[in-house]
Amino acid sequence: MNVMELDLMERPGSETVARREPPPFPLTSRRARATDTIVAVGDTWIGGGSLALMAGPCAVEDRAQMRTVAEALCQAGVKILRGGAFKPRTSPYSFQGLGRGGLEILAEVGAEFGLAVVTEVVRPEDVSLVAGYADILQIGSRNMQNFSLLDAVGSSTRPVLLKRGMMSTIEEMLQAAEYILYRGNRQVMLCERGIRTFETYTRNTFDINAVPALKSLTHLPVIADPSHGTGKRDLVDAVAKAAAVAGADGLIVEVHPHPEDALSDGAQSLTLEAFARLVAELRLLGQALGRPLS
Amino acid sequence: MNVMELDLMERPGSETVARREPPPFPLTSRRARATDTIVAVGDTWIGGGSLALMAGPCAVEDRAQMRTVAEALCQAGVKILRGGAFKPRTSPYSFQGLGRGGLEILAEVGAEFGLAVVTEVVRPEDVSLVAGYADILQIGSRNMQNFSLLDAVGSSTRPVLLKRGMMSTIEEMLQAAEYILYRGNRQVMLCERGIRTFETYTRNTFDINAVPALKSLTHLPVIADPSHGTGKRDLVDAVAKAAAVAGADGLIVEVHPHPEDALSDGAQSLTLEAFARLVAELRLLGQALGRPLS
Amino acid sequence: MNVMELDLMERPGSETVARREPPPFPLTSRRARATDTIVAVGDTWIGGGSLALMAGPCAVEDRAQMRTVAEALCQAGVKILRGGAFKPRTSPYSFQGLGRGGLEILAEVGAEFGLAVVTEVVRPEDVSLVAGYADILQIGSRNMQNFSLLDAVGSSTRPVLLKRGMMSTIEEMLQAAEYILYRGNRQVMLCERGIRTFETYTRNTFDINAVPALKSLTHLPVIADPSHGTGKRDLVDAVAKAAAVAGADGLIVEVHPHPEDALSDGAQSLTLEAFARLVAELRLLGQALGRPLS
Amino acid sequence: MNVMELDLMERPGSETVARREPPPFPLTSRRARATDTIVAVGDTWIGGGSLALMAGPCAVEDRAQMRTVAEALCQAGVKILRGGAFKPRTSPYSFQGLGRGGLEILAEVGAEFGLAVVTEVVRPEDVSLVAGYADILQIGSRNMQNFSLLDAVGSSTRPVLLKRGMMSTIEEMLQAAEYILYRGNRQVMLCERGIRTFETYTRNTFDINAVPALKSLTHLPVIADPSHGTGKRDLVDAVAKAAAVAGADGLIVEVHPHPEDALSDGAQSLTLEAFARLVAELRLLGQALGRPLS
Repeated sequence: MNVMELDLMERPGSETVARREPPPFPLTSRRARATDTIVAVGDTWIGGGSLALMAGPCAVEDRAQMRTVAEALCQAGVKILRGGAFKPRTSPYSFQGLGRGGLEILAEVGAEFGLAVVTEVVRPEDVSLVAGYADILQIGSRNMQNFSLLDAVGSSTRPVLLKRGMMSTIEEMLQAAEYILYRGNRQVMLCERGIRTFETYTRNTFDINAVPALKSLTHLPVIADPSHGTGKRDLVDAVAKAAAVAGADGLIVEVHPHPEDALSDGAQSLTLEAFARLVAELRLLGQALGRPLS
Repeated sequence: MNVMELDLMERPGSETVARREPPPFPLTSRRARATDTIVAVGDTWIGGGSLALMAGPCAVEDRAQMRTVAEALCQAGVKILRGGAFKPRTSPYSFQGLGRGGLEILAEVGAEFGLAVVTEVVRPEDVSLVAGYADILQIGSRNMQNFSLLDAVGSSTRPVLLKRGMMSTIEEMLQAAEYILYRGNRQVMLCERGIRTFETYTRNTFDINAVPALKSLTHLPVIADPSHGTGKRDLVDAVAKAAAVAGADGLIVEVHPHPEDALSDGAQSLTLEAFARLVAELRLLGQALGRPLS
Repeated sequence: MNVMELDLMERPGSETVARREPPPFPLTSRRARATDTIVAVGDTWIGGGSLALMAGPCAVEDRAQMRTVAEALCQAGVKILRGGAFKPRTSPYSFQGLGRGGLEILAEVGAEFGLAVVTEVVRPEDVSLVAGYADILQIGSRNMQNFSLLDAVGSSTRPVLLKRGMMSTIEEMLQAAEYILYRGNRQVMLCERGIRTFETYTRNTFDINAVPALKSLTHLPVIADPSHGTGKRDLVDAVAKAAAVAGADGLIVEVHPHPEDALSDGAQSLTLEAFARLVAELRLLGQALGRPLS
Repeated sequence: MNVMELDLMERPGSETVARREPPPFPLTSRRARATDTIVAVGDTWIGGGSLALMAGPCAVEDRAQMRTVAEALCQAGVKILRGGAFKPRTSPYSFQGLGRGGLEILAEVGAEFGLAVVTEVVRPEDVSLVAGYADILQIGSRNMQNFSLLDAVGSSTRPVLLKRGMMSTIEEMLQAAEYILYRGNRQVMLCERGIRTFETYTRNTFDINAVPALKSLTHLPVIADPSHGTGKRDLVDAVAKAAAVAGADGLIVEVHPHPEDALSDGAQSLTLEAFARLVAELRLLGQALGRPLS
């Protein structure tokens, strides 16, 4: 546990004599590339100075829901639609997603509205199936150290959005990314989505420190998920803007036409109206920071 | 997060008005069975009052190593041999196990010495392969919420040793077990192996509270892993005995003929001599508690 | 533990039936006051829309050090100087601060440069002494639940900066503030300074969620400490700006003329040059947000 | 944070090159004394191989309550009575203890039944007052790093029971003890009482690892508090026995004649009958381990 990239860090109060060693994630490390990795998706890109937005419901529920969300994204100028078809759920009795049917809805709605789509893949053998529908393959928090799944997406040509394990260290996340790069897929984005702590007021504790830390440790784009990072709709706005200012290359936000009826994660989903306001504020903030929305 | 089995627990200081609802793990709950589940393995059994011991190296390294360990187990009266053939490792550059070759060594040495064997399976598609060699299928900590893997072992006829996720609550563990039982496999053992906390002196914090908590919440046997639970050889002895006294139905302990040369987890592995002493102490303790070693 | 303000929160996934009860911190709650509390200090104020800056070394070391820092603050337009005279230290063998001599230096340098000063008080019997020198009384993280100290500053007429305990929940912090308000002192600021988690790359995990959460739960000003919140100089800049954007009413930042020689907390202290750059960036950000520096 | 006693530990997986340095708690370290410290209290002693028991209610409520408890202790052969007169409470509106009146009841009942008494002191200026009534001065979890209080009890001649902070590492606890020893008081006992983790089923996570870890790192007696360590009455029994087997020199247990009416901590208090059963089981266990109750 807690092996460290010794040559990049200093531990306050530590008596440790740091050896100058290569970091345990050579391909992922900043030292592997002089410039930031930029991931091209549809007609947009992630990384390199702009602020990319991805939004949509936790789960694909039906076509009408997805079309309503997609239309709102287009009006807001957002270019990437999210939605889960395979849902890893704590209980076997919870809604597990629509599966292949959900993928079809997602892809068709994306095509209709000219949006790229991102969705989660949970089994190695589903990678080629999901890659047939999605522009970005998402690895969920519970699977960050599912190494056979990492190997499988590492052999795909689709970009990967790797979510941080809820109790994984920053370095473990970089080593998980290394599995994917090591297999040949260099189009990886790292997603901070909150960690598990003693605090129970929020669902997770969004680790804002991880945003600048990752930006200094790796050349890969960093995405922030303020929805899972807080678990509470009323905190999403502030944390989204904070993550952008701290250097995140993009945000992924849960929105739902009717959060109170959502089949999962309703408490942390923004309404379409609230999301439109957030995008407007992010646009203004981006102008002040010299970072256009992409 | 932190949904609770409301009718079985009382939250100190909480203002919560608990509703009387069924627990979210109906098959796993104590209420599902009047008596403890007893798992039969080889010529021994786990659960029902005795104390079962499992021991062996973290990873199967070669046949000589495994034969040396097996011989020591026989001398100590221990009947279940552990050893990893597929090793989930944080880094892609770490030793990943011998794979099928490791399974073969494990099974042959087990047969030679009359020991049942337990080993980890990490991919759904490997379940039938591993079940062909092993008496018990182990689900590792990082895979506790790998639901497709849980489904796969749930369809196997082999008993399953489910390790608690290092970041998972007691209730999430019970819900993970529910996935397996729901698929039809009722031979499940729950393994407390330490959780991740702020304490860095030890590798993990062994959650001794979880042992009696699980015994009251479920009819499944509870196994303790003091090796991962502490990460330090010098603490294994005390925590092993503590877990037994707290009600664990069995222990799984890492031993190695030469811990200093181990390919993984050397710092927490007992020597064969130290293990023999621990078994002798557990036998005495078991006599005092009326719990024979099985 | 973790009693919650039931009528203000919704717990994702919880089966809890929330009762409508008054929050356990009636004076501190938003419902106690229609408008934000504004704390007046020297010729500046904290709360009410502006962004207040406080900066200085962890410990007062000598007059020359403090004069150098104070001069840099004046040039940057910062109006509040921090510096510790009584230092609570983990080890009895660490530098414990200059005590009364440090208070004298701090007060004299503050007067010379027209700066208000903030410093920590660690014993109830020192409150009147410290209040004779300081404009703001700081309660440190380790003393957040030192209730006799809270009672003592609650009886003072000086404003109080209450730092969050490193393992205290948001609600416990609000209840700690309640002790101070209950004694009659309404001039309290709440300081998020990072919590203790499993992550070891950073010294603490700055809880950005706590900033908007506190703003919604209480009328008191919220201050962010990105220095302790990260423990690493290179992360201070990003987290300071993030906290400001998330709604913090002020920032307290450790600066030192020569961080490498600091008697404490050197690894997280900014140089004077880096601090000047940060203030310039915060001024631009504040203009974009309509929040002038105060 | 997390400075380590480098020459006594090995960090699994760490690349750290440990320097051989003295531990940062020289007086508290095992190396300071060849033999275990034994603390004499009344006509009993703590440390040196026996198992000492302390029990009583969280708070002294009235004389009748304390007499009922004391009588039960005498019948069970227990020699140390606990009871809080000064109660540090999260909320200013909670019962804060009877103060001096509670000390008087405690001392009188102790004298009447021939029991030594232990009670908490929360302010430096109260140390001599409390020492006038109590045989052992308890430092509570929230005050483990209240250094002026540590200094004050370090100058007392009464033995001290130092509870681990709920957010403190093992090493920070040893450094807190060092403050007391450094002031001259060598009669210190260290109490593991559970740490704060992400697990919410229990109030705290009892750190069983800390028991053998402390026994190897220091010569001071180690006491376990399974009541706060679990927060649930039904788990106290198992964790108490586990701590004893893991090497604790004593146990401190909350008991109450009518837990459902207790003014604080009722959910974790044993009834007198349950406590008598626990003592009987501990006596049998102690015989098996060669550790008589003291």
